[in-house]
Amino acid sequence: MKSQTEYLTFNTRKPREYINITDRVAQVVARSGISEGMVLVSAMHITAGVFVNDAEDGLLADIDEWLESLAPYRDGYRHHRTGESNGDAHLKNLLVHHQVVLPITAGRLDLGPWQQIFYAEFDGQRPKRLVIKALGE
Amino acid sequence: MKSQTEYLTFNTRKPREYINITDRVAQVVARSGISEGMVLVSAMHITAGVFVNDAEDGLLADIDEWLESLAPYRDGYRHHRTGESNGDAHLKNLLVHHQVVLPITAGRLDLGPWQQIFYAEFDGQRPKRLVIKALGE
Amino acid sequence: MKSQTEYLTFNTRKPREYINITDRVAQVVARSGISEGMVLVSAMHITAGVFVNDAEDGLLADIDEWLESLAPYRDGYRHHRTGESNGDAHLKNLLVHHQVVLPITAGRLDLGPWQQIFYAEFDGQRPKRLVIKALGE
Repeated sequence: MKSQTEYLTFNTRKPREYINITDRVAQVVARSGISEGMVLVSAMHITAGVFVNDAEDGLLADIDEWLESLAPYRDGYRHHRTGESNGDAHLKNLLVHHQVVLPITAGRLDLGPWQQIFYAEFDGQRPKRLVIKALGE
Repeated sequence: MKSQTEYLTFNTRKPREYINITDRVAQVVARSGISEGMVLVSAMHITAGVFVNDAEDGLLADIDEWLESLAPYRDGYRHHRTGESNGDAHLKNLLVHHQVVLPITAGRLDLGPWQQIFYAEFDGQRPKRLVIKALGE
Repeated sequence: MKSQTEYLTFNTRKPREYINITDRVAQVVARSGISEGMVLVSAMHITAGVFVNDAEDGLLADIDEWLESLAPYRDGYRHHRTGESNGDAHLKNLLVHHQVVLPITAGRLDLGPWQQIFYAEFDGQRPKRLVIKALGE
């Protein structure tokens, strides 16, 4: 069995950002030397997510607006009694989820034609980590 | 380590459909010869999902209505400026997610009594692929 | 390849409860003897979920209120024609998902500083099972 584990750190300029990390995940897969396996891509924070969707700017703006409509930034979350103001970011994280698992086939990330991997920052402007772990043979 | 990778193609009659694929996933697990492992079941498109729930027609209709209420088919998505009209399907995909990972124990898909695996088509009437990859020993 | 599979059973006092199972998952990882791998944590019922978030009581109350607002307990779900009354629990399960996959690195659960694993019960007061399966080397 082979494994390869790498960490990325993001420090976004805006509170919310969607960053295409497909190439970086593909590079980890290439470095792993794995022919058949799976790769886990997982945010290590509870106010950030990872999802697979289309690299189309209009769609990413739609996604951002939609997440804000379902899990709005607002006062009044109980979580804010701790001094935090990011209750919405925790809920957005639950909506899109913090991780994906992707297939590795014949030594490559086995994605469909439009599938791109995004790191979704919901409470940025500070360093946040993500782990990429490939496992297989 | 053993692995088994198979692809299914769906071409639904309706734009939205929910197809029970539990038996097909179980067959891949059987062909893999894996005793202990995991199987990834993942849509290869960004307008389709995979989820685990109950094979009960009323519930599937409830799920469809609920997804439509949270991520409605409508004009006005920015994504439609590209000529597409399936903005809602991308959001529904984010809600239910495009993949599940299931345990293989003692050579079988290790599901609970009511757990069934569904392919969820949100923008059908054309060929769409899904990958099933079992990994283990 | 090594694997370790264990089952937990929950029988909550309330219909909805959020139970921190991080230590129990870490114990399975320790017993597995796996140095590099992944661990799948998956509810075996379709009215319960597993998610990773912050162990902060105010936030858990926010999450519960938010799930209830997006997938309310109510009459009128088609699923209730079967005699059930838990349509909302199925939808809440779809929202938070029934499983997570977590990295094992250097023999330990490789979580970020605030990441805790929760079993989310949406239709409790009866025995419900969860499977934890670690895989790696």
